[in-house]
Amino acid sequence: MTSNIVLSEVEYNVVGKRHVRPDGVDKVTGRAQYGADVQLAGLLQAKVLRSPHAHARIKSLDTSAAERHPGVYAVVTAADLPFASLTREELGGDYQRLKFASNHVLATDKTLFKGHPVAAVAADSLHVAEEALNLIKVEYEVLPPAMTVKQAMKPNASLLHDDLFTSELGEMSDKPSNVASHMAFEAGDVEQGFQQADVVLEREYETASVHQGYIEPHNSTAFWNADGQLNIWCSTQGPFVVRTNVADILRHPVSKVKVTPMEIGGGFGGKITAYLEPIAALLSRKSGRPVKLLMTRTEVFEASGPAPGTWMKVKLGASRDGRITAADIFLAFEAGAYPGSPVMQGAACALACYDVPNARINGYDVVVNKPKTAAYRAPGSPQAAFAVESVIDEICEQLNVDPLEFRLRNASREGVRRVEGPVFRRIGLVECLEAARNHDHYSAPLEGPYRGRGVAAGFWFNRGFQSAVNISVNPDGTVNLIEGSVDIGGSRASIAQQAAETLGIAYEDVKPTVVDTDSIGYTMVTGGSRTTFATGWAAIEAAEDVKTQMVERAAQIWDASVDDVEYVDGVLSHKSDPELRMTFRELARQLLGTGGGITGASNVDPAGEGNGFGVHVVDVEVDPDTGKVTILRYTAVQDAGKAIHPSYVEGQMQGGVVQGIGWALNEEYFFSDQGQMMNSSFLDYRMPTALDLPMIDTVIVEVANPGHPYGVRGVGEVPIVPPLPAIASAISHAIGARINRLPANPGAVLEAMS
Amino acid sequence: MTSNIVLSEVEYNVVGKRHVRPDGVDKVTGRAQYGADVQLAGLLQAKVLRSPHAHARIKSLDTSAAERHPGVYAVVTAADLPFASLTREELGGDYQRLKFASNHVLATDKTLFKGHPVAAVAADSLHVAEEALNLIKVEYEVLPPAMTVKQAMKPNASLLHDDLFTSELGEMSDKPSNVASHMAFEAGDVEQGFQQADVVLEREYETASVHQGYIEPHNSTAFWNADGQLNIWCSTQGPFVVRTNVADILRHPVSKVKVTPMEIGGGFGGKITAYLEPIAALLSRKSGRPVKLLMTRTEVFEASGPAPGTWMKVKLGASRDGRITAADIFLAFEAGAYPGSPVMQGAACALACYDVPNARINGYDVVVNKPKTAAYRAPGSPQAAFAVESVIDEICEQLNVDPLEFRLRNASREGVRRVEGPVFRRIGLVECLEAARNHDHYSAPLEGPYRGRGVAAGFWFNRGFQSAVNISVNPDGTVNLIEGSVDIGGSRASIAQQAAETLGIAYEDVKPTVVDTDSIGYTMVTGGSRTTFATGWAAIEAAEDVKTQMVERAAQIWDASVDDVEYVDGVLSHKSDPELRMTFRELARQLLGTGGGITGASNVDPAGEGNGFGVHVVDVEVDPDTGKVTILRYTAVQDAGKAIHPSYVEGQMQGGVVQGIGWALNEEYFFSDQGQMMNSSFLDYRMPTALDLPMIDTVIVEVANPGHPYGVRGVGEVPIVPPLPAIASAISHAIGARINRLPANPGAVLEAMS
Repeated sequence: MTSNIVLSEVEYNVVGKRHVRPDGVDKVTGRAQYGADVQLAGLLQAKVLRSPHAHARIKSLDTSAAERHPGVYAVVTAADLPFASLTREELGGDYQRLKFASNHVLATDKTLFKGHPVAAVAADSLHVAEEALNLIKVEYEVLPPAMTVKQAMKPNASLLHDDLFTSELGEMSDKPSNVASHMAFEAGDVEQGFQQADVVLEREYETASVHQGYIEPHNSTAFWNADGQLNIWCSTQGPFVVRTNVADILRHPVSKVKVTPMEIGGGFGGKITAYLEPIAALLSRKSGRPVKLLMTRTEVFEASGPAPGTWMKVKLGASRDGRITAADIFLAFEAGAYPGSPVMQGAACALACYDVPNARINGYDVVVNKPKTAAYRAPGSPQAAFAVESVIDEICEQLNVDPLEFRLRNASREGVRRVEGPVFRRIGLVECLEAARNHDHYSAPLEGPYRGRGVAAGFWFNRGFQSAVNISVNPDGTVNLIEGSVDIGGSRASIAQQAAETLGIAYEDVKPTVVDTDSIGYTMVTGGSRTTFATGWAAIEAAEDVKTQMVERAAQIWDASVDDVEYVDGVLSHKSDPELRMTFRELARQLLGTGGGITGASNVDPAGEGNGFGVHVVDVEVDPDTGKVTILRYTAVQDAGKAIHPSYVEGQMQGGVVQGIGWALNEEYFFSDQGQMMNSSFLDYRMPTALDLPMIDTVIVEVANPGHPYGVRGVGEVPIVPPLPAIASAISHAIGARINRLPANPGAVLEAMS
Repeated sequence: MTSNIVLSEVEYNVVGKRHVRPDGVDKVTGRAQYGADVQLAGLLQAKVLRSPHAHARIKSLDTSAAERHPGVYAVVTAADLPFASLTREELGGDYQRLKFASNHVLATDKTLFKGHPVAAVAADSLHVAEEALNLIKVEYEVLPPAMTVKQAMKPNASLLHDDLFTSELGEMSDKPSNVASHMAFEAGDVEQGFQQADVVLEREYETASVHQGYIEPHNSTAFWNADGQLNIWCSTQGPFVVRTNVADILRHPVSKVKVTPMEIGGGFGGKITAYLEPIAALLSRKSGRPVKLLMTRTEVFEASGPAPGTWMKVKLGASRDGRITAADIFLAFEAGAYPGSPVMQGAACALACYDVPNARINGYDVVVNKPKTAAYRAPGSPQAAFAVESVIDEICEQLNVDPLEFRLRNASREGVRRVEGPVFRRIGLVECLEAARNHDHYSAPLEGPYRGRGVAAGFWFNRGFQSAVNISVNPDGTVNLIEGSVDIGGSRASIAQQAAETLGIAYEDVKPTVVDTDSIGYTMVTGGSRTTFATGWAAIEAAEDVKTQMVERAAQIWDASVDDVEYVDGVLSHKSDPELRMTFRELARQLLGTGGGITGASNVDPAGEGNGFGVHVVDVEVDPDTGKVTILRYTAVQDAGKAIHPSYVEGQMQGGVVQGIGWALNEEYFFSDQGQMMNSSFLDYRMPTALDLPMIDTVIVEVANPGHPYGVRGVGEVPIVPPLPAIASAISHAIGARINRLPANPGAVLEAMS
């Protein structure tokens, strides 16, 4: 059952309809071109030699035998990266950032996770490249790994970097450690807040590393031309980010790098970092040939970014009447091998659902001997929500307050200031909570033993960032729209819809194309639930530019002033002469004969982020003999602001829930004590399949975002946030014991029950 | 010896310099991608069955055996073209145009030239496709061909079309004929003009069909997707024209057709018509697979457009003091199998060099059983100039006036009205004539028997038409420029230069890319010497748009009014606060953080065509035994308005001269009396090579075009115009007998001498 609660009053012609996606036929007929399909004359195949140890010093590296191997065209190591030959003085303030980014691509003195690239070979076949890898001699001194935050933060922990000094609230410590940085937010008077509380609970939580689990592995084909022009074809959420990263790491001008984004088989945040592109580029430069580099599934698991495992402590105080009075939160997130966990985002999301007058949040970014973490759908928010929402659930039990009622009493709304500073504009959390409370799922009886119901709320910012769109009018009244946003979840449609709505023409008359970095203005990643909001905004602005020019042209043709011409619903008319009237299509036909075509162009970096909230209700049943959890029913409620394409909003909600269920119940990186990942395949890393799940019901709430012309809020991130705490609470209610560690796999559930 | 006469006073930073071409490395390293390089998964190879007869009725056509042949995926004939199933009523006024266009692609009831396509096969290899062609049974009734204008205009001529009625000065005749249309220009009182003349000469001329002779044959790869999206990759001068033609012929929406122009190995006007694209598209639609179709050299000769053979009569009257008093000109141009010779352009160019007070020009477009003529560098102008300039040369001999002095006395200049109507703005013919007269070539002695010197002038319009350019600013201060103009002669450079000059940045900081028809606004063909003028103008306008936005951004950053900010030579500064100053690069770096990137877009259809003139001087020597003509020395003088990239202007001048020499001396289609082309290879169709020619000296004159910001006039067409008459006159002076028929090959010269 899928329903839709429309609070927006505006009725649109194109926006809000369930149109056919422009790339659908290509994808179902197998014609869509993915990175692995790229073919170029003289293409070489490449393979990466990766560290077998989670933590080791490279004592020697000898590639000479591989270089001599027949069929090998190039071998590269970190020595080929420009960073290797540049000093701290030459790189200045960029030194550590570039050193880490370079070493992440190819290790220099140490390898910091199993799978860390050490060298790469390009050859005339993949088999030859693999043979040549075996000829590379690496002598390692194996070091003890630090595999978790807890291990890594110990005073005597094995140190990953001997030059990493904690940035302690902006201050550098004088002793190297695995803590890359410490940040804190504070608001109100926390101690006084706890004194006002009638109940105070403090709990500790842990979550495991989980992977984004996209179907298509990373891939990159690069060709470094003799004039220094570097062309890259790859699977990425952000071609401009790849361009910047490659240019940075290779110290090559950004204008000499062209990135062509191929179709993408899933990303979820994991296809932003440039893992392969710099290696493929170096191999191409050395060989003078185009080079293709693909990851296997095992390489994807072992060497591309997971979401961080965490260690979290949450202390909440509440009054008897169900008001949160204070919060004190400790978040320690695994960064992986190099600094950069999303602990800052986790901290900013942790209490965003609630109006908490007194709060303190401390966040720690901690390096461990795992692959460097990457973004994964609402980075940092699911983990923080798991901790905070679980404590709230326990408080509700203690106070005997309905958990949705409790959340309504504390819910963030317009005017509430978040702990990290910003004040909410109009948001839809209250409407989502009410929709969940009024949903028949919430009042449906849930009988039988070992069954439980859980609820939770979740938050994401939905920021904008830069986007660009150009729209050119065709002589037949259709328009071509080019954009820099890779289409992962249907954004060709949702952006075309906004262009069509603005122009007052049919959806089918807008032909959207995702183009390379040479052909469109700078556009940030497709991620963070920004695309339909910000690139949609760019489409609206480009369409407005077209409209302005169409009005000017009509005025010219009619020998009138532009002030006399109006453009309404795709029709241009003279305000005082009813004879003078043209449809968009009629004017389009005349453009080439009256001064040339029309192109509207826009670059935006919109303010007006439409913060997003979701509220989930889940029923579970636990098998007391095995500890296995079955999801009986799941309902996700979410404020979309305005659902441009409701099917894709529902798809995002369902997809996010499914990934959250996997995270909550099954998924985790399982390491040996030497830091070897033991489950690096889709067989062993168990993601939920359609057979494991019921239909995920969705309720779209529409509280228009006042910061967007059509009221859009991003929708992709929010739905992965509530499942972790909602499911953990549901299990807790089913078994009568709290779940404070994820995944709640059968072993963990049995342990909690015992 | 190459020299440059600069009359323009303006000194530019980037414009006028000899920069390195952006596509140079790709082309010299063999990495540039041409149409034949296109590879797609599941690509089929196709081959066209062509008529062996110049004129025949198709009595029956049976493709069933070919369809059954193993490895054949699709067979198409004219029955697959939508025209075949549409009536005159359904097509209305477009009927004849679409019928001709469709029949040209695939013959229906008749074949009208040897090589006329009758059917086509797509198979899994070229060999299978060729085998299958042999299985197609065609029964022809062979008809007598009409091979020349003179034959075709005879009252009892074999008729190509039984529904072609002469459009007699706008009136339809009631009897079908091979004369497709008759047009006329008239000015002044022609009879009175001849009465004022002291000398009146009337001469008759003929020229042969010649080919553009580009190196790369026609090619087209098409993929018709299941959703009706048709993608085409081809070698064309005009991707948007291919898009329109394919959409017209296939009655498919223009927005469903995407044309990607590959690199082009020469065009010269011959790569505008869509010969193969509709066939490849139909084969792809039938087979569901991408289809590649290439012409052999013989197919290029036999079935792609030559320049028309002609029959011309010129009567000129002049006063004793060397003033032309009257002209009466008859031009009959071969259209080939379907109407559309450039006789109109020939008529408009014929007298454009001179201020002729009384003139009449009649032009006839005549269908003959040859491939349909196509544009070839200054279409129509070389033939008309051959006739008019030859008569002038004879008049100069009779009046004993120096031929440059005669031309100076009659030269068109600002304010002169052309026969067809327009009035010249500032032009540079006088300056070119003076430069030629003052050149040491013209005064150098030419001694020895059988040697002669010839001079001639030539004209081309250099019209503008539609062009589009988008420019996006990169964070490193470079810009990406996208354009719809295919680069044949260095236009990536000449357009980038104008963008760089306008922005006040370095040439190397502009990265130009030619993109597909989905990614840029409508842009007319690269041809007619319009590209550097009109697409350059589009680049200037897009750059001005960027500047406006850069000023707005600087004002925003400085919290100033845009009126306080000025942009000079790539530096933005506050008019009253000397502290506030940023280079283009410095501001570019800040764009993403202050509102997003900047893209300037433009679509233009500029007036202000900069009419172009050239004056050539040539010395020849004739071998009296064989009739062979050797070019001893050649000097081309031309007004470029402003030579944006002087090397490419010189290259255009030299290339045009060489093609003109080939046309004058050697090149011609040689047909059997049954209309079979007997010399359809580069071995037998003799084009001049470097070994046949001296260095072509060039003199660039710069009389700025007042209709363009940098004074540009097109330069590609003019240089092919004067060689025909200049060489014919030089030979005439060498042998003492006039050359009134081209080519002046050894046989023709011996005949004239005898």
